[in-house]
Amino acid sequence: MDDEKLPSESRGKPIRCRAAVSRKPGEPLVIEEIMVAPPMPHEVRIRIICTSLCHSDLSFWKMKDFPAIFPRILGHEAIGVVESVGEDVNEVTEGDTVIPTFMSECGECADCKSTRSNLCTKFPRPSIFMPRYGTSRFTDLSGEVLYHFLSVSSFTEYTVVDIAHITKIDPAIPPSRACLLSCGVSTGVGAAWRTAEVEKGSTVAIFGLGSIGLAVAEGARLCGAARIIGVDVNRDKFEIGKKFGLTDFVDPANSENNSVSEVIKEMTGGGADYCFECVGLISLVQEAYACCRKGWGKTVVLGMDKPGSQVTLPSLDIIFGKTLTGSLFGGLKPKSDIAVLINRYKDKELQLDEFVTHEIRFEEINKAFDLLIEGKCLRCVIYMTNE
Amino acid sequence: MDDEKLPSESRGKPIRCRAAVSRKPGEPLVIEEIMVAPPMPHEVRIRIICTSLCHSDLSFWKMKDFPAIFPRILGHEAIGVVESVGEDVNEVTEGDTVIPTFMSECGECADCKSTRSNLCTKFPRPSIFMPRYGTSRFTDLSGEVLYHFLSVSSFTEYTVVDIAHITKIDPAIPPSRACLLSCGVSTGVGAAWRTAEVEKGSTVAIFGLGSIGLAVAEGARLCGAARIIGVDVNRDKFEIGKKFGLTDFVDPANSENNSVSEVIKEMTGGGADYCFECVGLISLVQEAYACCRKGWGKTVVLGMDKPGSQVTLPSLDIIFGKTLTGSLFGGLKPKSDIAVLINRYKDKELQLDEFVTHEIRFEEINKAFDLLIEGKCLRCVIYMTNE
Repeated sequence: MDDEKLPSESRGKPIRCRAAVSRKPGEPLVIEEIMVAPPMPHEVRIRIICTSLCHSDLSFWKMKDFPAIFPRILGHEAIGVVESVGEDVNEVTEGDTVIPTFMSECGECADCKSTRSNLCTKFPRPSIFMPRYGTSRFTDLSGEVLYHFLSVSSFTEYTVVDIAHITKIDPAIPPSRACLLSCGVSTGVGAAWRTAEVEKGSTVAIFGLGSIGLAVAEGARLCGAARIIGVDVNRDKFEIGKKFGLTDFVDPANSENNSVSEVIKEMTGGGADYCFECVGLISLVQEAYACCRKGWGKTVVLGMDKPGSQVTLPSLDIIFGKTLTGSLFGGLKPKSDIAVLINRYKDKELQLDEFVTHEIRFEEINKAFDLLIEGKCLRCVIYMTNE
Repeated sequence: MDDEKLPSESRGKPIRCRAAVSRKPGEPLVIEEIMVAPPMPHEVRIRIICTSLCHSDLSFWKMKDFPAIFPRILGHEAIGVVESVGEDVNEVTEGDTVIPTFMSECGECADCKSTRSNLCTKFPRPSIFMPRYGTSRFTDLSGEVLYHFLSVSSFTEYTVVDIAHITKIDPAIPPSRACLLSCGVSTGVGAAWRTAEVEKGSTVAIFGLGSIGLAVAEGARLCGAARIIGVDVNRDKFEIGKKFGLTDFVDPANSENNSVSEVIKEMTGGGADYCFECVGLISLVQEAYACCRKGWGKTVVLGMDKPGSQVTLPSLDIIFGKTLTGSLFGGLKPKSDIAVLINRYKDKELQLDEFVTHEIRFEEINKAFDLLIEGKCLRCVIYMTNE
């Protein structure tokens, strides 16, 4: 009998464990002991197996003002095992392997019931608290409340997550691969597959070749795109991107006084069928829109610029059939779509191994921040134990 | 034997006939005799049965500077009978009933071959000349060239149109109804049906209830929309719009200090599924976008604002799954989709009769302009003969 299936001895009690706490903007995380309260009804307490660092962790770690808040446990891209469940949780049980997601899926609201949306309206925004109660499950040893991050918090040995933010997964694939589907890779692959619905033989342009942009390339490759053009200021990204189907590369600094959109329109004979903005810069959204094809070109925005920022588009381009849209989490519904991606990995179609460039121990977590800042890694997986 | 099928006596020769010539911006059209040259290869000479006045005729008639040009024969929404054909025209023959469209369909370019676009790239822009030759087929009796309008010109007893801009139709339905499918009604119905793909049971908001906006309502009604909200400064439009499925009405001047988007979000519990801008004002595009639903809301732009105008959108709305798109001619492919609409009229599904509010003789053509300016008509059909 699997140990994981034994009744949890800690069930119903607070757990004392280690977490990497972000106490001040931009300062190294501090690994300290914290208390993790038991799950309330509809909540699940999870032992994190591993977690990886996503760019949003970095943004909120550096951010000085609201919506940043401290002290906080960052991290949201992870995989773990259910330690115990609160009342009214029927979907998972102790010992199940699960993935938390910043996107909720209540299964009951108009959006969850529709095939057209993945924006659960019951819990519309990722929270600094548990979504149903507006309270945290974390305190430090002095009793101070530690805030959650994106309704998750995974830089801790144990966390509590609402069942609406939990997806049970097939434990057959390596945790370090599955955890990537918790946020970044799903977002990129989903954007090509679900949001854009990239067609076979089409031409794709991707602005920004971080993990999200490369995951868009991977998604477009899986959809059968014939040509995948990457745009990045870092030329090294072309070689890396080739693993994910990149066929062409445009360096904005080296396009001989032509704008990137002029270069891409020239390369594609009128514009790309699908363009993706994966950086979070309004100017790049506009450049992406400019280089998508009249008649059917679709621009998908994945990156988030500063709150309140606005995109300006020439009205004539709209009339000429260009579409602008965007999505969170690639338009995927976590509870059904992550399973599809896992199956495609098992079938050796979806590449995940190539995204993992670094693997470190929990104690070294600040190194993951350094690697991402230096642009030296795609995904750095952080293991909570040294097993 | 049908007279229309007899060989045309005028074939190959210039025809002298009457046309309503627009000689100066905003001045009454002058009915005078003109010469209409025989069709060149790939061209068709048509005897116009009737034509109706569309808002674009009015805009270009009033416009003082480029892209306006004078002297010109306006008119583009019409129906006629083929008088003679140039070389290499196999699609229609003398006596066929045809509809001209400002949109071309060459059938050979990437867009014409795709199901996703109706923007023929062989003849991408409606022209002041015959598209293949860059010349006019009209001269006045002093020999001065008269310009074409939108590759058509229908305020004349005879016109010449390129075969790419001609759709052969079933002559079984009344010409005064069929001619509406040449532009306005097709644009509106097509925008709901083809561009937005309005789903059964959905909620639709339409900004501007001229003929185009009402045709959008009619299209949405045919698609099974449950709720169709009209927005117009003219309250009389609500009663008129009810014939085309309008269920609700918002008067922007009477919304108690709330913006139209706030009113519509309140009415619909979060926003409309589909919003249509049918006026050609950037501010209304933005208002329409603001009132469409997060998650799947789609805003379709049909109206054209001034050249060079730009639309500004909050970037967060894009990420939250709102889509902005637009179309010309409702996204319809003239040669296949007009036939579908004619069949739906014959099956008593599509309403056309209700759009025809006035019918006049060619000699009274300036009255049609007055009626449209005064907002007193939807479509005024102008008969070329008094038969």
